[in-house]
Amino acid sequence: MYKAGLIGVTGYTGMELARILATHPQIELTHATSRQESGKKIEDLYPFLRSYKIGSVCISDYDAQELAKECDIIFLAVPHGTAMQSAGEIFSIAKTLNKTIKIIDLSADFRIKNPETYEAWYQIKHTEQDLLTRAVYGLFDIYADSIKNADLIANPGCYPTASILGLYPALKNALIQNDIVIDAKSGTSGAGRKAQASSLFCEVYDNFRPYSIGGKHRHTPEIEQELSAIAKKEIFVSFNPHLLPIERGILNTIYAPLAKAISAEKIHALYAGEYENSPFVRVLPSGQLPETRNVRGSLFCDIAISVDTRTNKLIIASAIDNLARGASMQAVANANLCLGLPLATGINNAPLCP
Amino acid sequence: MYKAGLIGVTGYTGMELARILATHPQIELTHATSRQESGKKIEDLYPFLRSYKIGSVCISDYDAQELAKECDIIFLAVPHGTAMQSAGEIFSIAKTLNKTIKIIDLSADFRIKNPETYEAWYQIKHTEQDLLTRAVYGLFDIYADSIKNADLIANPGCYPTASILGLYPALKNALIQNDIVIDAKSGTSGAGRKAQASSLFCEVYDNFRPYSIGGKHRHTPEIEQELSAIAKKEIFVSFNPHLLPIERGILNTIYAPLAKAISAEKIHALYAGEYENSPFVRVLPSGQLPETRNVRGSLFCDIAISVDTRTNKLIIASAIDNLARGASMQAVANANLCLGLPLATGINNAPLCP
Amino acid sequence: MYKAGLIGVTGYTGMELARILATHPQIELTHATSRQESGKKIEDLYPFLRSYKIGSVCISDYDAQELAKECDIIFLAVPHGTAMQSAGEIFSIAKTLNKTIKIIDLSADFRIKNPETYEAWYQIKHTEQDLLTRAVYGLFDIYADSIKNADLIANPGCYPTASILGLYPALKNALIQNDIVIDAKSGTSGAGRKAQASSLFCEVYDNFRPYSIGGKHRHTPEIEQELSAIAKKEIFVSFNPHLLPIERGILNTIYAPLAKAISAEKIHALYAGEYENSPFVRVLPSGQLPETRNVRGSLFCDIAISVDTRTNKLIIASAIDNLARGASMQAVANANLCLGLPLATGINNAPLCP
Amino acid sequence: MYKAGLIGVTGYTGMELARILATHPQIELTHATSRQESGKKIEDLYPFLRSYKIGSVCISDYDAQELAKECDIIFLAVPHGTAMQSAGEIFSIAKTLNKTIKIIDLSADFRIKNPETYEAWYQIKHTEQDLLTRAVYGLFDIYADSIKNADLIANPGCYPTASILGLYPALKNALIQNDIVIDAKSGTSGAGRKAQASSLFCEVYDNFRPYSIGGKHRHTPEIEQELSAIAKKEIFVSFNPHLLPIERGILNTIYAPLAKAISAEKIHALYAGEYENSPFVRVLPSGQLPETRNVRGSLFCDIAISVDTRTNKLIIASAIDNLARGASMQAVANANLCLGLPLATGINNAPLCP
Repeated sequence: MYKAGLIGVTGYTGMELARILATHPQIELTHATSRQESGKKIEDLYPFLRSYKIGSVCISDYDAQELAKECDIIFLAVPHGTAMQSAGEIFSIAKTLNKTIKIIDLSADFRIKNPETYEAWYQIKHTEQDLLTRAVYGLFDIYADSIKNADLIANPGCYPTASILGLYPALKNALIQNDIVIDAKSGTSGAGRKAQASSLFCEVYDNFRPYSIGGKHRHTPEIEQELSAIAKKEIFVSFNPHLLPIERGILNTIYAPLAKAISAEKIHALYAGEYENSPFVRVLPSGQLPETRNVRGSLFCDIAISVDTRTNKLIIASAIDNLARGASMQAVANANLCLGLPLATGINNAPLCP
Repeated sequence: MYKAGLIGVTGYTGMELARILATHPQIELTHATSRQESGKKIEDLYPFLRSYKIGSVCISDYDAQELAKECDIIFLAVPHGTAMQSAGEIFSIAKTLNKTIKIIDLSADFRIKNPETYEAWYQIKHTEQDLLTRAVYGLFDIYADSIKNADLIANPGCYPTASILGLYPALKNALIQNDIVIDAKSGTSGAGRKAQASSLFCEVYDNFRPYSIGGKHRHTPEIEQELSAIAKKEIFVSFNPHLLPIERGILNTIYAPLAKAISAEKIHALYAGEYENSPFVRVLPSGQLPETRNVRGSLFCDIAISVDTRTNKLIIASAIDNLARGASMQAVANANLCLGLPLATGINNAPLCP
Repeated sequence: MYKAGLIGVTGYTGMELARILATHPQIELTHATSRQESGKKIEDLYPFLRSYKIGSVCISDYDAQELAKECDIIFLAVPHGTAMQSAGEIFSIAKTLNKTIKIIDLSADFRIKNPETYEAWYQIKHTEQDLLTRAVYGLFDIYADSIKNADLIANPGCYPTASILGLYPALKNALIQNDIVIDAKSGTSGAGRKAQASSLFCEVYDNFRPYSIGGKHRHTPEIEQELSAIAKKEIFVSFNPHLLPIERGILNTIYAPLAKAISAEKIHALYAGEYENSPFVRVLPSGQLPETRNVRGSLFCDIAISVDTRTNKLIIASAIDNLARGASMQAVANANLCLGLPLATGINNAPLCP
Repeated sequence: MYKAGLIGVTGYTGMELARILATHPQIELTHATSRQESGKKIEDLYPFLRSYKIGSVCISDYDAQELAKECDIIFLAVPHGTAMQSAGEIFSIAKTLNKTIKIIDLSADFRIKNPETYEAWYQIKHTEQDLLTRAVYGLFDIYADSIKNADLIANPGCYPTASILGLYPALKNALIQNDIVIDAKSGTSGAGRKAQASSLFCEVYDNFRPYSIGGKHRHTPEIEQELSAIAKKEIFVSFNPHLLPIERGILNTIYAPLAKAISAEKIHALYAGEYENSPFVRVLPSGQLPETRNVRGSLFCDIAISVDTRTNKLIIASAIDNLARGASMQAVANANLCLGLPLATGINNAPLCP
């Protein structure tokens, strides 16, 4: 049994990590931290976890020494900036202890390889550039081998996960032109658990709205970095997110002009081939389209391919659960891999539908 | 007081027409028809209308003779095919009675000018091609003058209303290239009131999904016809709808490459100018984006303009209430105009928010 | 045209007052106050009101002198405690100006006649006991005559409105025993617009929960006071509220043992008779039950009567829109009455359904 | 590995059974039947199950011979009437095969011990009265020992499960008088997957309504039968259901006068004691109240106890997931028990929250 620490238990990604680890057969959450909720038990904060062993874990203040000493793996579910600082502290204590610790960072701190790009989009200085070089981007469908050997995983953003998985085979095989529009829609848990007026029930329910339109969202450089690596040339995207009045789920509709004449069937076969060994990507049969509920609470990414022959566009629809595949369950998958466990350990549950 | 007949009271557009006419100061609903609900009062079908005079109107079988004799204006809220047939019958009885009747058709039967296009997309023969020539497309922001003099109004589709209003100034002023993507999202009332499994609460709630992706939706030719007329050249669009888990509301996010270098400010000014005399189009101030709730239950179309300078795209977001602006309230606006009443008569209520 | 001031524009009741007054033909909102939003226009805060005259009203800091000088009627949409203070200030300035001002208080400050009861439940001292004596309880179905002559209206609470209207005929006619259970369910707008974690979308959506169970909710003494006045004896209720994942709407299911043998038909006739002159109470025909959507955005209270003969209970279901009938639209109705306008002026719109 | 058959895969209980069995380690679904969907694979009907082995199971017509021959356990997820017929057929074929088959019936056919009561409430003749005698009521918290030895389990109704678990300790210990009101609220999946207008998204969303008020709901006799058995005297309840605009979840608020003076603490201790060995009943700490989301997708029943001292009432709030604890997951728990497996096998997942 591996011992896990969770830094930042109060947000939705922390909550989802606790939920997943509650029944994980090989990783036990032994430490959870939060400044505001220190002293409570996890089950006081999250009554749905009452009666699980994890429910009685006491939430404590962040103590890098203790965490480094006691834990085999640490999940960082804190805001960017704070995450890199903790990672730095924990790794340097681990070094003094002569101990290997795995860190899965759910923030953006180690996702952007170029510190200048990071600083331009996140408006803070990157203080852990050595770690940045060491970090592996945790999209296991593509980078499983590196993840297995890494001790610092930059867990991908929610929108990037759905975007990159949707575009990977198309860009790898040069099917499309470099003129990509991503019309992204996310459930409200993506906005976090902070008490802010714009996330109130009565501001979101029975409503739908775009935000950060026109290339302003921070996930843009992350998406472009990864797509460029796949395409082996610099890729630009017009990334435009919208807020859905649902709890969990991202659905991206992605548009790009085809680079050459190719049938939908061939594209479909190509997608199926690329994801043949990816148990958690489901390339849907022709004529089927993804729905957020079909992946709710699961690690799946569902992808459908359409061709609009009238306008020569490839249209890709990809769906994930933003909290699960887009954050915490992907984090546990990465934890499994870097601890030497099978990918699906403890996270092979079926989606909750309806 | 004008007397109105409503053919097809049982769908959501019929329901919304009844709701709006319940308090209209100049148009009184005196006849409502339905095969299934004949014999009931409107308030039995729609208890929310109890205590209004309209609530006690008896629903009857369709009787063209009676409707033509008694009504000044008739709303057709029946499926395509049935609508053209009723229009034909009522107009020919009206002729024998030497009487002017105004017909507002909420179906698609008189929207597509080219009968072959109609037949290709709707899979039925157009049997009223004379009327087709006579019909005026009821987008009053653009065609108010023709509507005032018309006796047959083809009330625009919901998606087309939001799409055309969003693109009108851009195409009229040749701001964009002929490479338009419309990523459309509609509330579930757009799917109608028919009892079908895919519209069940548990199939829609906490879910989001695309449908008819890749140029398969019937609103495509209607949108292209109107955009082509505005642009004065043939326009193609990639129109891709999605189903929102909300009751009312359409939000379209529209992408097109800019045709020339022009600032967002200039485009905004141009939009504001084009809609200066359109009381129900609100071009939002820079930095604001539309939300479906801001137009709920109202005739407004809210439009925001953004420029993604990184990818040279104009991004237009337009929002309407699909049942109100996208169907029944637009129908009443058209009725007002062709009866010689001020546009806003009885439909100037503020949106219901939250 | 009467000039109105709105103290506290930022909550949901303030927002709803602004919405209603946007199209009121006889009352014009000229002053709106808020500490946090001072300096903004109403349309900046509430974009759905853009293009209405009210949208361009500037929100200012609270200034009792200015309000008293300029306004004919003032709506207090501020928390209890603050409300009584403002009422005191404005009335005393009005006196020095020798001017009549009408005040509609949407808080609880003038609802509880007994200051000790008020202080016990609201945990603050009542500093305006003279005004308390002068205030009229604004349930116009029962107290219309007093309201017409009052200058200070204690606008009823949302739960009390639905509870009292549901029980009024039963208690007035001594149909039930003094053993009343009110199982109340309210939409989330009732929790206000304050940014608090428990009102976040992801905490409310797809969820249902009781709160303040067992006689702990502050509306209990208000309900008991009014029911006691109707019954002419001291009435106790077990009032138990629940939070619905909807925006607007209260539905109370009320249980009480019958005091004597009486048929459901007779009770129904009695209810219909008591509300014969109440245009906004709809006693539903036998077999129909209220739904919150049937009263959405309207002044209606829908009431259904059932008898559970197996257990000898009268079961009353009553539904209102908590923001409209339960707060702001009832406030405007009271304003109409005390300004000498017809009750329904500007608030006779049909419910928004669906 | 036990082989399971599922008769009636198309409803929500069938869908939920398929979901649960998709990852069950000891029971494999090998047969699924449906008249309408025969010939499809399960993953065609339920795309969320794609990539699980269960997804490729072919749906077939009902064939009692085949089912009896091949399966160790059979779940009946068909309407009442049909269920008893299938049970009869399968058991008699099993007899000829000299084979033990376990049947879990999710319909009402074997819940009501008295066939006359059954016939009065369900309006059909009970044709399998021998089986009725043999059937065990599948509330495992109370009847685990009988269930282990049974071959026919009457799986409890959803409302009865929440009602009986809520009242069990109170009635067993004679804490309350025989004057019980159950105000029940259920998510819409309880209404089934049949395409009917009243279950459409736009009829349910942003709405709340009672139905079958006044002792008319068919779960009434089931609740009374079980409560009477617990109390060892005839118990009557006023059972009144409401429809919640959520997918899953029942929350019952139960009111009864206390039979004697007893503190809330003592009642709480008593409840905790009675459920000490029930891993899936969580008696909440004082001050906490259940929420449907806390049990979503799980086998838990959360119960809170309050005392309204002002009116001398015990108020019990109990919450379950109607599809999971109220139907299919309880069915699998019963299957586990009667197959000799540990109760929680394959169904110990944490609730999905948010």
